[in-house]
Amino acid sequence: MTQQQRKELDELLRHGPLDLGGDVAAQRAIFHEMISSIPLPDDISSKRDELGGVPVVTVEIPGTEEEGAVVLYLHGGAYAIGSAADSVGLAADVCRRVGARAVSVDYRLAPEHPFPAALDDAVAVYRALLDDGVPHTKIAIVGESAGGGLAVATLVALANAGLPQPSSAVVFSPWADLTVSGASATGKADVDPVLTAEALRIRARDYLGDAPATPLSSPVLADLAGVAPLLIQVGSHEILLDDAVRLASRAADCDVPVELQVWPQVPHVFQAFAAMLDDADRALLAAAVFIKRNCWLADTR
Amino acid sequence: MTQQQRKELDELLRHGPLDLGGDVAAQRAIFHEMISSIPLPDDISSKRDELGGVPVVTVEIPGTEEEGAVVLYLHGGAYAIGSAADSVGLAADVCRRVGARAVSVDYRLAPEHPFPAALDDAVAVYRALLDDGVPHTKIAIVGESAGGGLAVATLVALANAGLPQPSSAVVFSPWADLTVSGASATGKADVDPVLTAEALRIRARDYLGDAPATPLSSPVLADLAGVAPLLIQVGSHEILLDDAVRLASRAADCDVPVELQVWPQVPHVFQAFAAMLDDADRALLAAAVFIKRNCWLADTR
Repeated sequence: MTQQQRKELDELLRHGPLDLGGDVAAQRAIFHEMISSIPLPDDISSKRDELGGVPVVTVEIPGTEEEGAVVLYLHGGAYAIGSAADSVGLAADVCRRVGARAVSVDYRLAPEHPFPAALDDAVAVYRALLDDGVPHTKIAIVGESAGGGLAVATLVALANAGLPQPSSAVVFSPWADLTVSGASATGKADVDPVLTAEALRIRARDYLGDAPATPLSSPVLADLAGVAPLLIQVGSHEILLDDAVRLASRAADCDVPVELQVWPQVPHVFQAFAAMLDDADRALLAAAVFIKRNCWLADTR
Repeated sequence: MTQQQRKELDELLRHGPLDLGGDVAAQRAIFHEMISSIPLPDDISSKRDELGGVPVVTVEIPGTEEEGAVVLYLHGGAYAIGSAADSVGLAADVCRRVGARAVSVDYRLAPEHPFPAALDDAVAVYRALLDDGVPHTKIAIVGESAGGGLAVATLVALANAGLPQPSSAVVFSPWADLTVSGASATGKADVDPVLTAEALRIRARDYLGDAPATPLSSPVLADLAGVAPLLIQVGSHEILLDDAVRLASRAADCDVPVELQVWPQVPHVFQAFAAMLDDADRALLAAAVFIKRNCWLADTR
């Protein structure tokens, strides 16, 4: 059953219209259309708002919230594509299992707004949550793909700024190395139905311009000492597999409580396909358990 | 509290009498005496037995067993020290949380019995369990340190022999590279209170003689395709940190369902200190959840 699900998802993605390295305006529209074609459950309430001067989308599922936990959500799209609105489905899938509301950050996109615009926006929203009285122990940062790299960069930026860490961070298939130099960039190219190293390099240039990759744009290079407990989930059928492994290795070396979970034969951000893939549902549940446990631990420290 | 516990354990181990690279007979006696000084809970029943022609110690906790699950346990001691009897406490700590009995393998030790004696013994006991009618879906292999490397080598040997895999394997601080060439071999030397690269190299020579490291003695080199779901736990204060990370990376690359859990600032096989360390209790619980979940998944596949 599961094997059949994986095969069907692979087929679906291989024949999809998205070309992550293509013209930004066209790909943003295609990505939005793809996402809009997936119906959202009726019980989700999402609302545009602003927090810390940054546009956000708040996502709530009435009746499922516990104890005021907040997921600060960072969407994917290689820093150039996607939006908070496009990520409502996945953010809600996380929220439902955690029992939390999400604040999904509509961070500024490249190439119009290169590094560190996205990072500044993520930090501004986190700071605004604290200013609004949300305890840092009740916040978890969750990010997918570029949003996963951005999530870890945000933890580092918070540490650098002397702000308290959130209770945990969970990253799905993080893009954590903008030089795209992991062995899986070539080693997994044939089995990855979504990403290509060439497309990522195009988007890295959009985000960084001529600047080199630095710890705050490529957190595999960062000093991660003191950052929040980190859960990294990744599929084995993606060219970013080694980004996940190297991020885990880096975090471990820096004494961060870190867990790496590798799901075999599933693609980039497979968690977005919980409606058709049991692995996605299990991964989301594991993410929720991690977030809840670390909220609890942070409160008891 | 937890920080204080970590510090106390580090102190205890730094001033302990064990010298893993020392004379084998003397170190076996010291290790046995150290272990014997820790009282075992009254409710543990352990018994010497033989399975597949190999001496084992069976460990049971009456009243805690569920559905006939069996933990095939592989003790640590760098392939030259330790025994099934010395590992009863930790094996029982696993069993109690899983709701299973353990069969702890008294595999032959180096230098008297070099590679592949230990591996042959582990495979023989697994084969005997199958012959006794234990379903492979009810078996989990658990190993610590050298027993962790041996556990993964056993999975590979089972695959090579065309035998069914167990439901999962859990390895605590696996020694998975007998060349001792991970970056942490030097990078974590100062913070590791137990192990030294020099001691491990002495024991590797005992186990391998003049033979080079191969996939079945150093599973970081192995083709792990098709092996059982794998949970790897490791402390960040140990020179074998990179063995755990590289093993996870290798498993991920080979499409194995793999989880890596890194506990910061705790030493080699910290799970053995559940009586004084909350992290150990949490890690054992996570191991038990992993084992139970995969028994269940293996039964439903």
